[in-house]
Amino acid sequence: MSHKGKVTKEESLAYHVGGKIEISVKTRCDTARDLSMAYTPGVAHPCLEIEKDNELAYTYTNKGNLVAVITDGTAVLGLGDIGAVAGKPVMEGKSVLFKKFADVDAFDIELDEHDADKIVAICKALAPTFGGINLEDIKAPKCFEIERKLQEAVNIPVMHDDQHGTAMITSAGLINALEISGKKIEEMKIVVSGAGAAGIACAKMYKLLGAKKIVMIDTKGVIHSGRTDLNSYKAEFALETSDRTLEDAMNGADMFLGLSAPGVVSKEMVKSMNPYPIIFALANPTPEILPEEVHAVRDDVMMGTGRSDYPNQVNNVLGFPFIFRGALDVKATKVTEGMKMAAAVAMAKLAKEDVPDYVKAAYNGEELKFGINYIIPKPFDRRVFVWISAAVAEAAIKDGVARVKDFDIKAYRAKLQAIIDAEQK
Amino acid sequence: MSHKGKVTKEESLAYHVGGKIEISVKTRCDTARDLSMAYTPGVAHPCLEIEKDNELAYTYTNKGNLVAVITDGTAVLGLGDIGAVAGKPVMEGKSVLFKKFADVDAFDIELDEHDADKIVAICKALAPTFGGINLEDIKAPKCFEIERKLQEAVNIPVMHDDQHGTAMITSAGLINALEISGKKIEEMKIVVSGAGAAGIACAKMYKLLGAKKIVMIDTKGVIHSGRTDLNSYKAEFALETSDRTLEDAMNGADMFLGLSAPGVVSKEMVKSMNPYPIIFALANPTPEILPEEVHAVRDDVMMGTGRSDYPNQVNNVLGFPFIFRGALDVKATKVTEGMKMAAAVAMAKLAKEDVPDYVKAAYNGEELKFGINYIIPKPFDRRVFVWISAAVAEAAIKDGVARVKDFDIKAYRAKLQAIIDAEQK
Repeated sequence: MSHKGKVTKEESLAYHVGGKIEISVKTRCDTARDLSMAYTPGVAHPCLEIEKDNELAYTYTNKGNLVAVITDGTAVLGLGDIGAVAGKPVMEGKSVLFKKFADVDAFDIELDEHDADKIVAICKALAPTFGGINLEDIKAPKCFEIERKLQEAVNIPVMHDDQHGTAMITSAGLINALEISGKKIEEMKIVVSGAGAAGIACAKMYKLLGAKKIVMIDTKGVIHSGRTDLNSYKAEFALETSDRTLEDAMNGADMFLGLSAPGVVSKEMVKSMNPYPIIFALANPTPEILPEEVHAVRDDVMMGTGRSDYPNQVNNVLGFPFIFRGALDVKATKVTEGMKMAAAVAMAKLAKEDVPDYVKAAYNGEELKFGINYIIPKPFDRRVFVWISAAVAEAAIKDGVARVKDFDIKAYRAKLQAIIDAEQK
Repeated sequence: MSHKGKVTKEESLAYHVGGKIEISVKTRCDTARDLSMAYTPGVAHPCLEIEKDNELAYTYTNKGNLVAVITDGTAVLGLGDIGAVAGKPVMEGKSVLFKKFADVDAFDIELDEHDADKIVAICKALAPTFGGINLEDIKAPKCFEIERKLQEAVNIPVMHDDQHGTAMITSAGLINALEISGKKIEEMKIVVSGAGAAGIACAKMYKLLGAKKIVMIDTKGVIHSGRTDLNSYKAEFALETSDRTLEDAMNGADMFLGLSAPGVVSKEMVKSMNPYPIIFALANPTPEILPEEVHAVRDDVMMGTGRSDYPNQVNNVLGFPFIFRGALDVKATKVTEGMKMAAAVAMAKLAKEDVPDYVKAAYNGEELKFGINYIIPKPFDRRVFVWISAAVAEAAIKDGVARVKDFDIKAYRAKLQAIIDAEQK
């Protein structure tokens, strides 16, 4: 699990030849008789049962474990609007993560369609096939509208991961940072650099956690109440403030969340922050400021990046596989705020537990003890599968969106635990 | 491979729990480094290559081996309009057959949308994801319009299997029957009972083979030039004839194709047919007339059904896996009439070859020697994989729809042969 050198272009292209996922047959299909069950005439039986009660699709098909990963290719990674088909390697990669981390079958769909309402209509039409829909790499602001309208239109969970993944994970870090610093979130000054899908979703989640003062910054500077060029999503965060630049905003800030561009944060800005600040510099692969630059000027920073070679990695794989694992397992009709918050809280709690040896071994050298350098659990810590999935399932039940009745959460937790125990053998 | 008794409802339902297909990861994904190739940052390399040249999606993703099986659930098996999600077991079954018979990855999509133009628009938007589209179980006449418009709109092969599968396979049987009977197709009277998707597609293909006199029958009787209730697809087959009933039509007929209802053909009708008639009674599971009833009144009939327990089974699995195998392997932009005809001709030729022992063993007791009881090859005869796929690839090149340049058809045939040779070891 170590990083032996950087991945080269040649290596990556060779790795991708033929693609990364395939369709496998999971039933016995060797004889003519097997086929007469898998297909006509035997297949008529489950069809007729499902016709009578559509819920039985969760029993007699793969729907209950199947998530669509849908993009229009307009905001792929940091690459921007590269088009539907060029986004396919990323979406297949997402399927790989779904399967490897949470045994969810995820199928990638790249849409040659840019109109928000048409994307909603297409996804709505596709919904019978799937148990959930993970929207991916769709640019802001249309991603907000698409997610909202689609979730209203279908009775399966919908989540745009670019928004909520980062929100959940940075919220987990924020919850733990509050504990370490003894600060109250209501009193914190939070700077969000980058007002795209993730930035806005993060700010919304911090508000739910109690944040009152969020200074959001887009390409034109601070989003303040005097601006007349704001869409409704940004306008929601327009502040009465004299801050105009990132430099202004960082002065006296308690938290910086960067979803913007490499190197935009200076050492001087870091120095101007309040004691025990949080800096999540998530521009990838080069963050807004490197951890070594931060540590050169102060040693009380809770610093995270998007990279696996620094502490406190904010990696979406901590979230989406388990949001859908939990949601599918209780047949949730939607992803609620409560479910996302439960995921963040579970992540935060897990970082306070002792870390198993196999996790330490995977991150050679890192201390992994609750503290400023370990406020977010590690993706390869398999307990996340148990903790987060179960927390999400429980929250779905609490929020009344679970269709499975009398779900035994304790047995569920034990079942998930048995899976990761078996992996370690 | 034997049929040990009928599949019961209980058995079939138990078989279907959890569904039949899943998504598998086919690349190495065990370490953090593997994941940094499968996903960010390494995945950016293939994305950028595909952005520059969309054709490279065939190289760096699974697109080149991926077919969508798309239905709206309006004509599922013999069950009719049971709705999108109730059709899912059939579509998953189709994926099973694609994989088992031709190693094609097929993913099922059930659309909650009934409007023909909207279905076309959805499929068009989905096209970047896939290397081909297999339309399935969409009712006539909208299936004709959907297939035509969609094939015009996309540059990947599109085929509505319900139409062309039966057309190709019965055409193969017809070609061989002509050889056995010494008849000329131009002089044959062909009766088609059932004017749905398959009936019309079969009649069109027989016309391409040279048929001049096709008497088509729908629920209201013979489709003749005096009828005023015909849609344009049926009107194309309206004949100047005094035949009004199936009984009229069967008198002096050389071929009967049934895609209608159990038991509609009587022994008297069979007796009234010309010498060496063809009877393809494809109503399933109970044909228009049973082979034993036919044999009770005459012994010169080339008789086929949709069932595996009688000779000359007309089973679509002889067609679609290999149409797409061949089309994908030359990156065909469409499925042409030439490709479908090449498949039929290859199937017909194969039935004249000696049958390997493993095939005889799979069909315990059947003679499998070219003659009236063996004019169509068997689904479990793995040579169909080689013969039909290669014939389709070759026809795609000839028709100018292949995007692979300088395709070595001899090497391709050898590659496919090596695959089936390995299976027999």
